[in-house]
Amino acid sequence: MSNQDILDRLAAVVESRKPANGGDPEKSYVARLLHKGPDAFLKKIGEEATETVMAAKDVDHGGDKTKLVYEVADLWFHSMIALAHYGLTPADVVNELARREGLSGLEEKALRKVQERERLGE
Amino acid sequence: MSNQDILDRLAAVVESRKPANGGDPEKSYVARLLHKGPDAFLKKIGEEATETVMAAKDVDHGGDKTKLVYEVADLWFHSMIALAHYGLTPADVVNELARREGLSGLEEKALRKVQERERLGE
Amino acid sequence: MSNQDILDRLAAVVESRKPANGGDPEKSYVARLLHKGPDAFLKKIGEEATETVMAAKDVDHGGDKTKLVYEVADLWFHSMIALAHYGLTPADVVNELARREGLSGLEEKALRKVQERERLGE
Amino acid sequence: MSNQDILDRLAAVVESRKPANGGDPEKSYVARLLHKGPDAFLKKIGEEATETVMAAKDVDHGGDKTKLVYEVADLWFHSMIALAHYGLTPADVVNELARREGLSGLEEKALRKVQERERLGE
Repeated sequence: MSNQDILDRLAAVVESRKPANGGDPEKSYVARLLHKGPDAFLKKIGEEATETVMAAKDVDHGGDKTKLVYEVADLWFHSMIALAHYGLTPADVVNELARREGLSGLEEKALRKVQERERLGE
Repeated sequence: MSNQDILDRLAAVVESRKPANGGDPEKSYVARLLHKGPDAFLKKIGEEATETVMAAKDVDHGGDKTKLVYEVADLWFHSMIALAHYGLTPADVVNELARREGLSGLEEKALRKVQERERLGE
Repeated sequence: MSNQDILDRLAAVVESRKPANGGDPEKSYVARLLHKGPDAFLKKIGEEATETVMAAKDVDHGGDKTKLVYEVADLWFHSMIALAHYGLTPADVVNELARREGLSGLEEKALRKVQERERLGE
Repeated sequence: MSNQDILDRLAAVVESRKPANGGDPEKSYVARLLHKGPDAFLKKIGEEATETVMAAKDVDHGGDKTKLVYEVADLWFHSMIALAHYGLTPADVVNELARREGLSGLEEKALRKVQERERLGE
């Protein structure tokens, strides 16, 4: 199965956990977050981003890479809960990434700006 | 779009931007972040998580969903730069998510704990 | 150092940078952030929080404590810009902290909940 | 009492909660966080920064300012727990802020760089 297939399937599971689709906050963690509303899952995005940063810093000092994979998975997963709530999908995100992929020219242009800024002493 | 998975393709592009693979900090934004080292791209993860949260709050108040897709794409993209630096791939993350996908049983167990905690007045 | 409290004085400086008080975005970093509006300084709060976490992890591994002081100062300073924008002051925050200071009783109560949760296997 | 007096007193309370000073994880929330170690309280800094940003966005849309004061207090309080762990104090942070306070000249210099960067199209 491709990454995209897995993300699509996972998105379908999240979708099914929405209160409107019969998701039961008493039986599902995702249904519970969706039931609580945006602040509940958005807060988790900030939390999991911080845990990702900490896990990465630990790898810099000999820590376990598995922990980092786990934290990024948590970060992406809670992003997907937010996407679902707003009627969006991981495919929307991946398509946006694909749109940027061919952009070597743009990357170069963006870079020239960054270089100029650094020359100015940021 | 080629048949190959977009995330895999994008990961290959990021991989090619590593200094060890000839990525040129003078020509590529990704090469530049990888060249600067962990703090440069980890800081971006915290920044993009915050921008995701802000974009979501804006959607709650009538804002543009496209902005949210864009911010989540930024968040995932900078996660991928970190993964590459540590010798990991988006497939590692997606596989970890797949591993969890069958976990309705575990989800139920985790939920019982959350419910118990809330009963206690969190 | 004058007798007046430093945070109060600093808050007065931030206040004077508001566009309505003649703060000039062309001459002051604070005026510029206030002029740009909430997203500009709120984003900085997320960014500085991440930098605080990274600086702390570095101290864990022999890094410089001065860097940590500097990052927390950045975090508090950008919080103060946000407070000013919303008509609030650091004194409001410190008074809230003072209000909690006598709360050993409450701390104990909160703790009992945390312990109970952990007993349940969080 | 000045802001600084309150912060000093609060710092003394946090200091007394250190395991080395007899702080009891069974009786105090702060002692518990300090006992768990850096990841426990650093994670809270990322979490409270996100909650601050969300509370601010809510004020933008008619929400309660008291909530924002409460979240910034949480953010500063957990920063103080981290400072204590690393042998630092809020006075160190406030002194760093004071050092910057007279820096109108520096602020102007920093600003010129930002302006130049924006001129270049950031």
